[in-house]
Amino acid sequence: MDEILQVTLLYDFYGELLTQKQKLVYEMYYQNDLSLSEIAQELSISRQAVRDQLKRTEKILEEYEKKLCLVERFMAQKRAAKRIEEIIREMEKDEKLTQKVFVGIEKIKEITNEILD
Amino acid sequence: MDEILQVTLLYDFYGELLTQKQKLVYEMYYQNDLSLSEIAQELSISRQAVRDQLKRTEKILEEYEKKLCLVERFMAQKRAAKRIEEIIREMEKDEKLTQKVFVGIEKIKEITNEILD
Repeated sequence: MDEILQVTLLYDFYGELLTQKQKLVYEMYYQNDLSLSEIAQELSISRQAVRDQLKRTEKILEEYEKKLCLVERFMAQKRAAKRIEEIIREMEKDEKLTQKVFVGIEKIKEITNEILD
Repeated sequence: MDEILQVTLLYDFYGELLTQKQKLVYEMYYQNDLSLSEIAQELSISRQAVRDQLKRTEKILEEYEKKLCLVERFMAQKRAAKRIEEIIREMEKDEKLTQKVFVGIEKIKEITNEILD
């Protein structure tokens, strides 16, 4: 997986377990796209301290994932919803759909959309 | 939700974040069904200390859930799979299922079974 996407997902799941300071630096860098120097200036710390802090935060997030595997579980469920969506799309190509099947397909599409959103 | 089921789910998700000692007492009580007195004797601590330890562990697990809501997310996905399963069961009652729809239904059943297991 793309490294930034991976960090974003980890933050999405475990961010609430970080300290305020860790969250602040993470968000400045990954969400507000500030450079290391800009963050350093803003917080009156060295550029190296910012870099260390970010590395440490990433490591903490990765350790939570190693213990809890929630991103992995979450991705597996997204993949399952995606597979159901593809099967439904295949079913829809059938030209002889009955009313009952048609209604069912529409309902399942709503549910997979919810999961995939 | 049933209180013991709730604690079990919380432990299933967040147990790896507890200390060895917390896990030990939790498992003696909830998994091996030892009484407070039996655990106290086993660990050479007071019955009250065991009770406090368990209460504290439950509180820690609840705090993780308050921050991360993973049990809630997980239950929501189970409910979604359950709804898809019901819709599929309704579709199956249709007597004029085409081959394509029939195959699709079988595949979706496999996937929802995986999620619900």
